[in-house]
Amino acid sequence: MKKIVLLRHGQSLWNKENKFTGWTDVILTPEGLQEAKKAAILLRENNFNFDYCFTSYLSRAIDTLNIVLKGLNQEYLPVEKSWRLNEKHYGVLQGLNKAETAEKYGAKQVQIWRRSFDIAPAPLDEEDPRNPALDPMYRKIPKELLPRTESLKDAINRALPYWQENIFPKLKDNDNLLIVAHGNSLRGIIKHLKNISNDDIVNLNLPTAVPYVFEFDDNLKLVKDYFLGNQDEIKKLMADIANQVSKK
Amino acid sequence: MKKIVLLRHGQSLWNKENKFTGWTDVILTPEGLQEAKKAAILLRENNFNFDYCFTSYLSRAIDTLNIVLKGLNQEYLPVEKSWRLNEKHYGVLQGLNKAETAEKYGAKQVQIWRRSFDIAPAPLDEEDPRNPALDPMYRKIPKELLPRTESLKDAINRALPYWQENIFPKLKDNDNLLIVAHGNSLRGIIKHLKNISNDDIVNLNLPTAVPYVFEFDDNLKLVKDYFLGNQDEIKKLMADIANQVSKK
Repeated sequence: MKKIVLLRHGQSLWNKENKFTGWTDVILTPEGLQEAKKAAILLRENNFNFDYCFTSYLSRAIDTLNIVLKGLNQEYLPVEKSWRLNEKHYGVLQGLNKAETAEKYGAKQVQIWRRSFDIAPAPLDEEDPRNPALDPMYRKIPKELLPRTESLKDAINRALPYWQENIFPKLKDNDNLLIVAHGNSLRGIIKHLKNISNDDIVNLNLPTAVPYVFEFDDNLKLVKDYFLGNQDEIKKLMADIANQVSKK
Repeated sequence: MKKIVLLRHGQSLWNKENKFTGWTDVILTPEGLQEAKKAAILLRENNFNFDYCFTSYLSRAIDTLNIVLKGLNQEYLPVEKSWRLNEKHYGVLQGLNKAETAEKYGAKQVQIWRRSFDIAPAPLDEEDPRNPALDPMYRKIPKELLPRTESLKDAINRALPYWQENIFPKLKDNDNLLIVAHGNSLRGIIKHLKNISNDDIVNLNLPTAVPYVFEFDDNLKLVKDYFLGNQDEIKKLMADIANQVSKK
């Protein structure tokens, strides 16, 4: 069986502070570091030997991957980083507390921004220092590709070409791939793999740092998918994320 | 000016215990982690913005690189790892204390193994668990390329093709490259860049985690090279390494 493991990064500072993060490069909390170590232990207990790894440009994903590879003694593995695996860009909401935003704009509006498939928050001004086109980190990416806001649909549409052209073809010559990324870029991959509808994908809430395994047969057809770890605990984590908007 | 920075990894456990390390995958000491952080600060103070990074398969080099990139907020950079940048393979000496080996075989013989250009220690048996051909880490490398011992000449001869084919060509389209590797693989690159004789290269003792900068003009001709940091301190560090054989 060939396997692809998806892993959402551990808890970041702004996950904890319940802020819209998006492309802001926020560090992991001590809990987030712990979660990443726990993911490494789970993967080791289940004898995962990866061949190739993928992650985003954001350090919370890269740090999670580094911790996992260290825990597996597999630091020598090739790692490819792409901005296309970044979190969804939250436009002007980036940096705002989710509960405060709900008070200001109404819980309903925030729910639309967070959970609608194709409605994006207002975009950043071009001169806004948060505009990725002004960030040296993205200097080698054609400016016209860089977003100033994104709907889930937009985020999926820029993540999937990377899946199609860079990640999935690697499964031909490799047996085990690891992708460490973000709630929404991973949603894009899962939507594609499991053929989930636009309406349903917004309700999929990936827990942080829980390895999500996809198994493929020799024809690269998806056979099954499952989370590693305690299944009740994982269900509870997924429900918690769905309720996040009310937390200050 | 285009720049390539060479960085030897921070102090490892076996550097500290004065053992022959070679391809053994030994972790950094707390001092080694500190050294890597210091290197990041020096590079940041000198405004280094890298475009591309290279390192070996050994975790002491990868960890040093990860710490440096984190300190520079440049974790998103592409990193290419190659076994060709590994430390010299020390054959049967790997794991032995340098002073104890000197007592057993005589200081002169150990000096020959450590510092001659083209004499290698006795090779590992093929069945020796330390044989890289038996290590899953090297499963994708053609077995006939993997050493069971190396002279400095051997180590340089397998490192330089990687320099020629993968590292140096990247300088055409990029301004700043970072290479984090090992005493002997870096000796190979320095020998080549500065045209140092076989006799002289064995006396070059690179201090751990001190950035060594090479500047190139637009024709990729080497213009100058220098260490970053306190020059007197660096000279002392280099002299200390030369005297290492006597330490238990």
